Amino acid sequence: MRNVNAQTITEAVLARQSNTADPRLKRIMTSLVKHLHEFAREVELTEEEWFGAIEFMTRCGNITDDKRQEFILLSDVLGLSMLIVAQNNDKPAGCTEATVFGPFHVEGAPHYELGADIANGARGTPCEVRGTVRGSGGEPVAGAQIDVWQSDADGLYDVQHPAVDHAQARGILNADSEGRYHFRSILAVPYSIPHDGPVGDLLKATGQRPWRPAHLHFLITAPGFETLVTHVFRSDDPYLDSDAVFGVRQSLIADWKQQPDGSYLVEYDFVLNPSA
Amino acid sequence: MRNVNAQTITEAVLARQSNTADPRLKRIMTSLVKHLHEFAREVELTEEEWFGAIEFMTRCGNITDDKRQEFILLSDVLGLSMLIVAQNNDKPAGCTEATVFGPFHVEGAPHYELGADIANGARGTPCEVRGTVRGSGGEPVAGAQIDVWQSDADGLYDVQHPAVDHAQARGILNADSEGRYHFRSILAVPYSIPHDGPVGDLLKATGQRPWRPAHLHFLITAPGFETLVTHVFRSDDPYLDSDAVFGVRQSLIADWKQQPDGSYLVEYDFVLNPSA
Repeated sequence: MRNVNAQTITEAVLARQSNTADPRLKRIMTSLVKHLHEFAREVELTEEEWFGAIEFMTRCGNITDDKRQEFILLSDVLGLSMLIVAQNNDKPAGCTEATVFGPFHVEGAPHYELGADIANGARGTPCEVRGTVRGSGGEPVAGAQIDVWQSDADGLYDVQHPAVDHAQARGILNADSEGRYHFRSILAVPYSIPHDGPVGDLLKATGQRPWRPAHLHFLITAPGFETLVTHVFRSDDPYLDSDAVFGVRQSLIADWKQQPDGSYLVEYDFVLNPSA
Repeated sequence: MRNVNAQTITEAVLARQSNTADPRLKRIMTSLVKHLHEFAREVELTEEEWFGAIEFMTRCGNITDDKRQEFILLSDVLGLSMLIVAQNNDKPAGCTEATVFGPFHVEGAPHYELGADIANGARGTPCEVRGTVRGSGGEPVAGAQIDVWQSDADGLYDVQHPAVDHAQARGILNADSEGRYHFRSILAVPYSIPHDGPVGDLLKATGQRPWRPAHLHFLITAPGFETLVTHVFRSDDPYLDSDAVFGVRQSLIADWKQQPDGSYLVEYDFVLNPSA
C-alpha cells in the first residue's frame, strides 16, 4: 500500500483495520475513520490547522488530572455528552429523565445518614433537599443509593479548591424503607464551567459563554432498576436556556423555596426505570 | 434551549456557535460538530463506549510529554496525518513528494558542517548520505537548510532512550553553494512505533502491526521555496507495503548500497517547489 492520496487513504486505513476481532469495535472504528477523514477533506484542513488541533488536544491532556477532566468538558460543550445521554436513555413516560454526568463526580464520596449535612464546611446558604425514589409503577424503592454532588456559593466543586482536601457538598445516602430521602446542603447557584484551559479558549473563540444554570447532580442506583444520572435545576435560574452543556430538561426543573429563616427547601421525586 | 434530543442537539450546538467571529473557525467547527454527532448516532455509541473513549484520550494525554506525542501517533495510525499531508502538498511533477512529519522531530537540533557524523554516538552500522537540493527548474539551492533525524540500530530515536540527554542521529546542515549535501550517520532500520501506550492498544485491538519501514526524516527549508517535510525509504525493506502510518511513496524509495568496508551509502536528490 503505497502512494495513497487524500481520497484513497480512507480505504487504505479501513483495509488495515479489516482484521479487527471485535465486530462492535470494527463498526465503531470504520465509522470513526470515515467521518474523521470526511471532516478533514470537507474543510480542506491545512497542516497548520492540523497541528493546532494536536496542540489543543495536548493542552487538554496536560490540564487533565485526577481532579480535572478537560476531555469530558470538551465532549460536554460540543454537545456530544448530551447526545450520548439522549440516545441511551429513552425511558418510558413518567420516568425521571437523564442528563449529563459532567466532569466533577468523585468515586468514593463519604456515606451519610439521612438528614445529615453533606455540605461538610462548603460555603453557601443552607438548603434542605428531600423527596422520594419510586419505581415506574409507583412503588417506593427502599434503600435506593443516592450519590449527590454540587458546587458551592463560589460556583466551585470541592475538587476545584486547591486548599480543600476532603469531600464537601457531596455524599452518598440511602433512601429509607419507603423510598424517602432528605439531607441538608447548600443552595445551588449558577456557575461557569472551568474556562481557564483549552475548552475555555474554544468557548471564547466560538462566541459562547461558560455558564451553567444552578443544579444538583444525582446518581441513583438500586437493584432491579436502571442507573439514573441526572440533575435537578432551579426554576428561577437565568441560564436555563443557555446551559453551556445543553443539559436542561423541563421535567428536571424544581422550585427552590426560601424559608422564613432564610434557608431554602427543594423537593424532588425520582422515578426509576426497571432494568430490562 | 431545553429538552434537546439526539437529533436536535446538533442544531442546538451549531446555533450556539453561530457567533464565532472567525469565519474559518466557524466552518471548521460546524463540520466537526456535524461529523462527530453523525458518527455517534450512526454507531449508536453507548455511554460505556463514550466513557471508554474519554479514558482513551485521557491516557493519550497522560503519556504525552516533551519527548512523546501520543496524539500525533494517533493521528498517524488513523491515516489523518497522511491525508492532511496529501491534500496540502499537491506539488508539480518532478518535485520531491512530502510525507508525514511524525512525532519524533525535535526543535533546535545541533548544527553540523557538511561531512560531519551526526550519529553522535548513536548505535548502528555506519552510513553516508549525500545528494543535491535543487529547485524545480533544476537550479541548485545553495545553502538549503537540511534538518535530518532517524532512529538507531535498536529502532529508537534519541528521545526514546531515557539515558540519552543529547541529540543523537539528528542534526541540521546547510547545502553548499552548488546545493550539495553529505553527512555521515548510521544505517536506517525498520522499527515499531511506540506501542506500549493507548495507540499500541488500539493497533492490537484492530489487528494491526506497529512496523514502519526504515527511513530517514528530512525537513528542508530555503528562501523562495516551499518547506519540504519528507522521508527517504530503503528499497529492500519488508514493510514498504505495510507502513503503520501510510507514509510510503514510490518516489521516496532509494537504494542503500553496502560498501566494501561494510558501511552503507545512500544518495538522494531533493527537488523543492518554489513558493507561491
